[in-house]
Amino acid sequence: MENKVERIKNAIRDVPDFPKEGILFKDITPVLQNAELFALSVELFADVLKNTNIDVVAAVESRGFIFGAALALKLNKGFVPIRKPGKLPYKTFKETYELEYGTDALEIHQDAVKTGQKVVLIDDLLATGGTAVAAAQLIERCGGQIASICFLIELTFLEGIKKLEGYPVQTLIKF
Amino acid sequence: MENKVERIKNAIRDVPDFPKEGILFKDITPVLQNAELFALSVELFADVLKNTNIDVVAAVESRGFIFGAALALKLNKGFVPIRKPGKLPYKTFKETYELEYGTDALEIHQDAVKTGQKVVLIDDLLATGGTAVAAAQLIERCGGQIASICFLIELTFLEGIKKLEGYPVQTLIKF
Repeated sequence: MENKVERIKNAIRDVPDFPKEGILFKDITPVLQNAELFALSVELFADVLKNTNIDVVAAVESRGFIFGAALALKLNKGFVPIRKPGKLPYKTFKETYELEYGTDALEIHQDAVKTGQKVVLIDDLLATGGTAVAAAQLIERCGGQIASICFLIELTFLEGIKKLEGYPVQTLIKF
Repeated sequence: MENKVERIKNAIRDVPDFPKEGILFKDITPVLQNAELFALSVELFADVLKNTNIDVVAAVESRGFIFGAALALKLNKGFVPIRKPGKLPYKTFKETYELEYGTDALEIHQDAVKTGQKVVLIDDLLATGGTAVAAAQLIERCGGQIASICFLIELTFLEGIKKLEGYPVQTLIKF
């Protein structure tokens, strides 16, 4: 497993000053476009979840959808999209969360998760943790239980993990 | 295959007046959240592509990512995300396209597709076709060849298929 993680880690591209000056962006597209590394990354998610009881996979748009949908297929589970406001057509729950400047929000369909269903939440990146907390709260408002929150990448210096206290969190690659 | 298509078609939910009055929105989330139907929909994409030579799967955010990434995993191919402007961190090509009111644009990483690679473009919905044309042009600007453009749903009355003349197009479900 260590070796698999290293192979993916080595393929992630650093892009300086994106989205703004001083930020070193972790670009996962070289992993995605390589068939073997993409399959390997989904396999790593499946590996860390192999002892977790899961009913459905949820993910936040847009990059989260890539790993979330592929993992749902691999695990033979359904997929629940969590989206920016105004994107989901049916009745929704909404959670607002704070950004560095201002706020953002996410929505989930009210019937996306059934009461008591065990949900794994997938995202590509754990940064400050705000998005993941809001997504987890949306799943809980539907009556779902968070079986695990899994990230491909954790930026440890941002300490987003602290915001997720109380949730089972697994991160594959740490920077 | 007919029966599989019917099962998915029957699970798609009509949401009236979304995103605005008078539009009957085709909501695919009931298909996604059902493990069997989600797997079936990806299988249908794989079925129609079984005689197509493919190097890589591309898709437009956000709903396209769901089927595109799952299909890439199933076919053991890489995945190329095509995104809204300002989202991709590396050097990009950009295509602007017209909407009913105003314009929109999409971007692709310049190194996302290699010269001569055969690319299948996946999206959930063929409406007016503007998004798909722009995405296909981006793939071609990278040097890729469009092996197929596949949609889960085609809204035939919008005649988007006309804009895609010259491309091999396959749609699984027609309304």
